[in-house]
Amino acid sequence: MGFERALFFPSGTMANQVALLLHLPRGSEVLAPEGAHLYEYELGAPALLAGALVRAVPAPGGVLDLEALKRAIRWGPFQAPTGLIALENTHNLAGGRVVPLEVQKAVQALAQAHGLPTHLDGARLFNAATFLGVEAKEVARGFTTLMVSLSKGLGAPVGSLLLLPNDLEAEARRYRKLLGGGLRQAGVLAAAGILALTEGPKHLKRDHALARALAEGLARLGLKVEPVETNMVYLEVPDPQGFLERLKAQGVLAGAVGGRVRFVTHQDLRDEDIPQALEAVYRALQSKAP
Amino acid sequence: MGFERALFFPSGTMANQVALLLHLPRGSEVLAPEGAHLYEYELGAPALLAGALVRAVPAPGGVLDLEALKRAIRWGPFQAPTGLIALENTHNLAGGRVVPLEVQKAVQALAQAHGLPTHLDGARLFNAATFLGVEAKEVARGFTTLMVSLSKGLGAPVGSLLLLPNDLEAEARRYRKLLGGGLRQAGVLAAAGILALTEGPKHLKRDHALARALAEGLARLGLKVEPVETNMVYLEVPDPQGFLERLKAQGVLAGAVGGRVRFVTHQDLRDEDIPQALEAVYRALQSKAP
Amino acid sequence: MGFERALFFPSGTMANQVALLLHLPRGSEVLAPEGAHLYEYELGAPALLAGALVRAVPAPGGVLDLEALKRAIRWGPFQAPTGLIALENTHNLAGGRVVPLEVQKAVQALAQAHGLPTHLDGARLFNAATFLGVEAKEVARGFTTLMVSLSKGLGAPVGSLLLLPNDLEAEARRYRKLLGGGLRQAGVLAAAGILALTEGPKHLKRDHALARALAEGLARLGLKVEPVETNMVYLEVPDPQGFLERLKAQGVLAGAVGGRVRFVTHQDLRDEDIPQALEAVYRALQSKAP
Amino acid sequence: MGFERALFFPSGTMANQVALLLHLPRGSEVLAPEGAHLYEYELGAPALLAGALVRAVPAPGGVLDLEALKRAIRWGPFQAPTGLIALENTHNLAGGRVVPLEVQKAVQALAQAHGLPTHLDGARLFNAATFLGVEAKEVARGFTTLMVSLSKGLGAPVGSLLLLPNDLEAEARRYRKLLGGGLRQAGVLAAAGILALTEGPKHLKRDHALARALAEGLARLGLKVEPVETNMVYLEVPDPQGFLERLKAQGVLAGAVGGRVRFVTHQDLRDEDIPQALEAVYRALQSKAP
Repeated sequence: MGFERALFFPSGTMANQVALLLHLPRGSEVLAPEGAHLYEYELGAPALLAGALVRAVPAPGGVLDLEALKRAIRWGPFQAPTGLIALENTHNLAGGRVVPLEVQKAVQALAQAHGLPTHLDGARLFNAATFLGVEAKEVARGFTTLMVSLSKGLGAPVGSLLLLPNDLEAEARRYRKLLGGGLRQAGVLAAAGILALTEGPKHLKRDHALARALAEGLARLGLKVEPVETNMVYLEVPDPQGFLERLKAQGVLAGAVGGRVRFVTHQDLRDEDIPQALEAVYRALQSKAP
Repeated sequence: MGFERALFFPSGTMANQVALLLHLPRGSEVLAPEGAHLYEYELGAPALLAGALVRAVPAPGGVLDLEALKRAIRWGPFQAPTGLIALENTHNLAGGRVVPLEVQKAVQALAQAHGLPTHLDGARLFNAATFLGVEAKEVARGFTTLMVSLSKGLGAPVGSLLLLPNDLEAEARRYRKLLGGGLRQAGVLAAAGILALTEGPKHLKRDHALARALAEGLARLGLKVEPVETNMVYLEVPDPQGFLERLKAQGVLAGAVGGRVRFVTHQDLRDEDIPQALEAVYRALQSKAP
Repeated sequence: MGFERALFFPSGTMANQVALLLHLPRGSEVLAPEGAHLYEYELGAPALLAGALVRAVPAPGGVLDLEALKRAIRWGPFQAPTGLIALENTHNLAGGRVVPLEVQKAVQALAQAHGLPTHLDGARLFNAATFLGVEAKEVARGFTTLMVSLSKGLGAPVGSLLLLPNDLEAEARRYRKLLGGGLRQAGVLAAAGILALTEGPKHLKRDHALARALAEGLARLGLKVEPVETNMVYLEVPDPQGFLERLKAQGVLAGAVGGRVRFVTHQDLRDEDIPQALEAVYRALQSKAP
Repeated sequence: MGFERALFFPSGTMANQVALLLHLPRGSEVLAPEGAHLYEYELGAPALLAGALVRAVPAPGGVLDLEALKRAIRWGPFQAPTGLIALENTHNLAGGRVVPLEVQKAVQALAQAHGLPTHLDGARLFNAATFLGVEAKEVARGFTTLMVSLSKGLGAPVGSLLLLPNDLEAEARRYRKLLGGGLRQAGVLAAAGILALTEGPKHLKRDHALARALAEGLARLGLKVEPVETNMVYLEVPDPQGFLERLKAQGVLAGAVGGRVRFVTHQDLRDEDIPQALEAVYRALQSKAP
């Protein structure tokens, strides 16, 4: 992927947070697209661990607004200085949408002009590469550090990698151990991770096709479905919690994310699971009114 | 002002931050109006000290959007829970604008419905009370904690107060000492603070009148001036730094705040200082092109 | 083991640190025996995470000096208040020594008298129970929280448990997720952990016997060996690093811990490995002078 | 005093803590003599602010044991690395005892050999210089940073200085502001500080003489008095709290520090205050048994 080092972490959250610890001085800010996982779903970790604030930058469809990004950059002595610009590709809360490579490059150029490092939350990097039809390393190019998940789409049970340059390795190991991510016999997990890296990406094209098929079916049911680019299908329904419970009773698991319902396709699905899921959705919608 | 206790602090920043430490569990969030001093000008302190993130809520003209506030409230287990709602009155970055008391009450009611405490950054509370024509304690009413500055408009050289209930006092003292705010002979500063509290508010009406006079004069010079409610006049000029230096050379001090130029009126001004400042502005604009 | 809840963690360090986060207010202190793992080998985590200091209490042979413990307890307002008393049983750096149950009870009584919680770093709790000839729950009795490792002597590849009361569970989950210890498919690891809990303890008696046999052999070689109670053999040799490398070249792995050499016996050893290790030690000592 | 820069702080605690923030990476350790103010009386601030632990090094009579100091130095990757060595001169809890300059130099040499910075808590630096009969800058020589109090013996109502090299100034200012130590009109306090620096040191010889006179009188009363080198007299009495209250009733103020009673002499004392204080002590001891 074009990096000098890769460290194994028990989770993407920990890998992201160690990246923040590496880049952010105490009392600084990380700029991230609104809805970024590191702002919305890592429980305030940037504050407790790195002692840094997150400043959300407008990002319609998951794509950072470059003008807003420029205005958000701060430096002292009266304000918390910007210490890092972070991106997320694909952007989960934006519907698994893919950030175009030229946007990544523009952000990297802006960061470089201000002497700032960049970090990519690439939990679903291989999904972005699959959608764009490029090698993963093309999506990874130009970032100071990068997190990629071995679980999620790639299929390992546990683990994420933090890719980084040589000169950050010692400190990354120290922070990993401090956070409790130092595993004595990590080999059994790393072995699954190697399989995920070699075999996992091959399945993603099919995951995306299944997601599109699901989205089209949901739209035919009259539901408001967000644009699908990768393996996620977001939609709005009334009473999401009740809807999800009725689905679950029929053996279909989905989640409530950001106030919407999210389906994620993956390599353990059979082709026939899509029509079956659609039928379950149909029933769950019908049985709405008790 | 209707609180059980008041503690003296060396600065408003420290008083605000101790309030955050009192209210916010580690890894939680404080909701604050966009442009809040505690987000923009306290150098990331909420993160380093309380281990908490700030989530900025849209606040046109300094007044929180209540619907946006409702959507911003979070609770676990997947997200950093909201631990506090903070307001700022008057709101500095919004131009010294006054938050209406009914907005304060609506925010307090929403907080109470979610079991959340509220904090008012009332650095300029007496300016708000003066504008509204009410007692200061009317503006202070209903907040769990409140910070008010003895310096700034009230005229003491140093110091702010944190008003709080009895049951938070011991912990507030502990945090104040931890942050280096425990002064052994605070009496000499407290004495100035008592004078500020008794004499200072009487001058604010005149400060506001001078600010309005200045704003009107600046508008007559063709400048784009923001609405003035209290003792601050914000305007936009091209090349603010050069403009401020040319003003300073003529003995008029103003500041660059939030990308704009800010004038603040105060009790040490003479009436004739306003026309003199306007003349200096006129010259500073003329001499723009060298 | 007598606790209401048990949570799975990727490591004992993380479980210990979440316990500290649960018990310790910001700016407080945990009292721990000198040489405690949480002070010596968790990389300053109590400070960075809980914002708390560690105060080491004299503990000859791993056993807390109760009078020194009493003197170490502090409360405000001028000093960082004691927030927790932690023990470690068996105590690694003290040579895997076992803390007597009456000492545990005396510490618990002292803690209770001061309204303080207690935490046991029981990474090797089952070794202590085996040595004492009691059920594990006897060693676990009376602590507010307790960490026990599934790896180490019990044989799972990864994982530790934090045992805790119901009312701390929600916050423990929140902190676990914040630190990156929330695993989506933890089942594969938990399954190994269940096996470790059911099968692992049966092997410990033999581990201890092997350690004693090793210690006796090392003493016969003229080495200064510390008293052995469980599965650890600590000894002093000149040039520990060189000694360990010469051992490793012969297929015997040991570690340098606390300035000494440490051997740890475990269930994957064959009986004949002990004499073989002794022979390797003999050779490593002989070849000392090149 | 031989430093490039001096910054004014509201308190010695804040100046000390900013020094720790400047020197200590997150998750590191500061080595300090046992009883150091920054460990005992700054309420856990090193942990909450710098995210660093304190490791107390044996220091009989306030003088660091150099062999113990060497053993206490740690570096990664398994242990929290040492980030700073701090001294305190005079050492308050050790009775206001003076650390010899050759000990300071030996510590500085050891620090330099390990690439570590040094910080002096010189709250009472001028007392040490007075005792040693040298210029203050002789005591200050060789430290990376140094804190000196303007209040305490020198007589200013509020304030301490942090002396530091040019390259740490910007970050020190950032941290000072973050902690709430940025004062807008610090001049009124700084003026008192300048007077304290110029006039204060002249009085210290007399303070020390008064302390010796007091100590001799207390010894004549049969009390166990610690050796007096500067302006502090520590003694042990039964029931210190009751003793202090009975003293206070007679107009003599002393404090309970580290389990003992502490008297501090200062420039506002008249010569006749010493015999008067001794008489009050005599009465307070007599009235002990009700």
